[in-house]
Amino acid sequence: MGTEFLSIKDPVEVKKIIENLPIKKRTENVPVKDAYLNVLAEDVYSEINLPPFNRASMDGYAVIAEDTFTASEENPIKLRLIESVKAGSVPEKRLEKGKCIEVATGAPMPPEATGLVMIEFTEKKDDEIYIYKAAPIGQYIAQEGSDIKKGEIVLSKGKLLTSDKIGVLSAIGLKQVKVYSKPKIAIISTGNELIDQGEKLEYGKIYDINSETISNSVKSCGCQPIKAGITKDNYNDLSNKLKEYMDMDLIITSGGTSAGTGDVLRQVLDDMGEVLVHGIAVKPGKPSIIGKIGDTIVFGLPGYPVSAFVVFHVFFTSFLRKMAAIPSKQKNNILNLKISRRYHSSKGREQYVLVEIEDDQAHPIMKDSGAIKALADADGYFKISKNMEIIDEGSIIKVKTF
Amino acid sequence: MGTEFLSIKDPVEVKKIIENLPIKKRTENVPVKDAYLNVLAEDVYSEINLPPFNRASMDGYAVIAEDTFTASEENPIKLRLIESVKAGSVPEKRLEKGKCIEVATGAPMPPEATGLVMIEFTEKKDDEIYIYKAAPIGQYIAQEGSDIKKGEIVLSKGKLLTSDKIGVLSAIGLKQVKVYSKPKIAIISTGNELIDQGEKLEYGKIYDINSETISNSVKSCGCQPIKAGITKDNYNDLSNKLKEYMDMDLIITSGGTSAGTGDVLRQVLDDMGEVLVHGIAVKPGKPSIIGKIGDTIVFGLPGYPVSAFVVFHVFFTSFLRKMAAIPSKQKNNILNLKISRRYHSSKGREQYVLVEIEDDQAHPIMKDSGAIKALADADGYFKISKNMEIIDEGSIIKVKTF
Repeated sequence: MGTEFLSIKDPVEVKKIIENLPIKKRTENVPVKDAYLNVLAEDVYSEINLPPFNRASMDGYAVIAEDTFTASEENPIKLRLIESVKAGSVPEKRLEKGKCIEVATGAPMPPEATGLVMIEFTEKKDDEIYIYKAAPIGQYIAQEGSDIKKGEIVLSKGKLLTSDKIGVLSAIGLKQVKVYSKPKIAIISTGNELIDQGEKLEYGKIYDINSETISNSVKSCGCQPIKAGITKDNYNDLSNKLKEYMDMDLIITSGGTSAGTGDVLRQVLDDMGEVLVHGIAVKPGKPSIIGKIGDTIVFGLPGYPVSAFVVFHVFFTSFLRKMAAIPSKQKNNILNLKISRRYHSSKGREQYVLVEIEDDQAHPIMKDSGAIKALADADGYFKISKNMEIIDEGSIIKVKTF
Repeated sequence: MGTEFLSIKDPVEVKKIIENLPIKKRTENVPVKDAYLNVLAEDVYSEINLPPFNRASMDGYAVIAEDTFTASEENPIKLRLIESVKAGSVPEKRLEKGKCIEVATGAPMPPEATGLVMIEFTEKKDDEIYIYKAAPIGQYIAQEGSDIKKGEIVLSKGKLLTSDKIGVLSAIGLKQVKVYSKPKIAIISTGNELIDQGEKLEYGKIYDINSETISNSVKSCGCQPIKAGITKDNYNDLSNKLKEYMDMDLIITSGGTSAGTGDVLRQVLDDMGEVLVHGIAVKPGKPSIIGKIGDTIVFGLPGYPVSAFVVFHVFFTSFLRKMAAIPSKQKNNILNLKISRRYHSSKGREQYVLVEIEDDQAHPIMKDSGAIKALADADGYFKISKNMEIIDEGSIIKVKTF
């Protein structure tokens, strides 16, 4: 009774402990067409030149450039049109002085051509083309390999495959690519009171929430959630459930972390592995646990949905993204917003406050961490450092959106 | 020959035309477990109270509050423990004055209880509990329905179902929910030179890129891409391909939009439907087309991958998000960054420049829009308005990340 937490740790220390947790990385080959938002596990080299041939960059006429050097609006020169080459076709005639070949954007240039006159500066009269402007050597001709050379590295290991990067892999004709496997993360909800949405709500029971919120949050970190379901809040059920999922990269539980009668994760971890953190000096989320069983990391979130959600976002998302090898470069989910009312924080503990964003203002949600309505209204959260007591109405706060 | 665009339109005018395009919205019922990142198509009301019963918010002892009013560290009062109720269990004994019932966080309170003493302020000696602090009436008791009342609206139509919102639907035990159907968007690449990644690269051909970049970009806007493949750049093939996909919400083509010999989308649209925009005063992306065939909107992107990608992002993403009913509230993909070098823009046309982000600086990518390497390196882009010529090194620019 009245069991105390082992030792409440400072958030900064906890973040350091999380940063130093070991990460095993696995890789797999996937079709490029399915690789969207995966992360490259190898440097990718091009096996072809891009463009793969000297290519016309404009619609116009391929010429021997010297033929056009004296051309002007007043004194056009005349060339004989001997062929017309569309994109995807191959020039068949030989280009010689005094002649020209029509080329469409993207068509291969005749090998003898040294210039291209844009169609806008020409006029066609039967088989004769009047050229009104000189074509500088090489202009509007994309030389073979000028964009990407065969053997050149095009994308480096660690690159997130957004739609443009998938385009690059497509451009060099790649069909398969080696990416990091998405880390598998088991999600366990503990609590005798929890039931699944399929079940009838009997007196004393509530529907499980954390399985859904945490699974989807895990997905948004580039990991693969495995729903392990609900387990009773007792030693045997929880330890058996954990044993079942020892082949996962990580296990996230919720509930069963505080110091009361029915809370057992702490004991199970003490026996099966080790506890690295039990208790963080934050509000909400104090009774969080970080432990290890063999090689498998276990994050124990509080049972209250708001606490579980906030602790997950504040402490664990960046680790999960690191597990998934997702680079942080493009990430920016911070909005600078005015707070719509004065907010009073409890001194001595770092605090995270949910906010609703409306009319470009952040409205703090004045509900406790047991409230589901808070989750319904929330768009993000902001942090109050432990030595801060009052945030004045109208102050600018940094809101992290979900 | 030398065909001109009908009339080059200003980007602001084009954006207005796009905004006014009609949107048909369809809805469907999906399981809540699969509803992540869908958008609610109905207001959701709770059919239960939350909490569904008077619930203990702390581990401690349920008491008749009056019993404890004189309790203090120096003068504890003594109550007889008659039962212990875990979360998920139901109290069976009747609580009376002079007695107490142990309750775990989440357990139902005995109906007679009016107070809860936290376990930290008690001591257990056999069957007697020493209470060292008074329990104010109602404290630490979450009353039935105090969070969400039966019949109350919990989430409004139009809400994006992020992980926390899915949690809210789970909390009220919902199994199915009505969401907006993801708009179906056909993606067509046109060009005689284009081949699929499965094919051998013959002289004059290049691999199709836009099918992949645009499909995945469409996905990121909450829509469902349907890859319609590659079509030849001639009137019959393109018009037949378009006819095949008339049941889509939108068709996006790339290539076949400029004014050269092999470009036909304009003619096809003139015959089958109407052209709303042909030519936008932007760089890259001038030869873009917006048209309609019957009820089906057609966006014609330029063929060059960089141009297609940039035009898609600048002009079409927000329309696609609107089609998918995705709220814009939480969106923030703008970074304020220093530009790493002086950049010279061509006056008179709004310009979009790709940048690579490195060391918190934006490095403009000095490649033309035919270059694939530009896509490989790009992290985002910034806009230069049409009257701006020089951006000085070190200026702060707004980079929109992909």
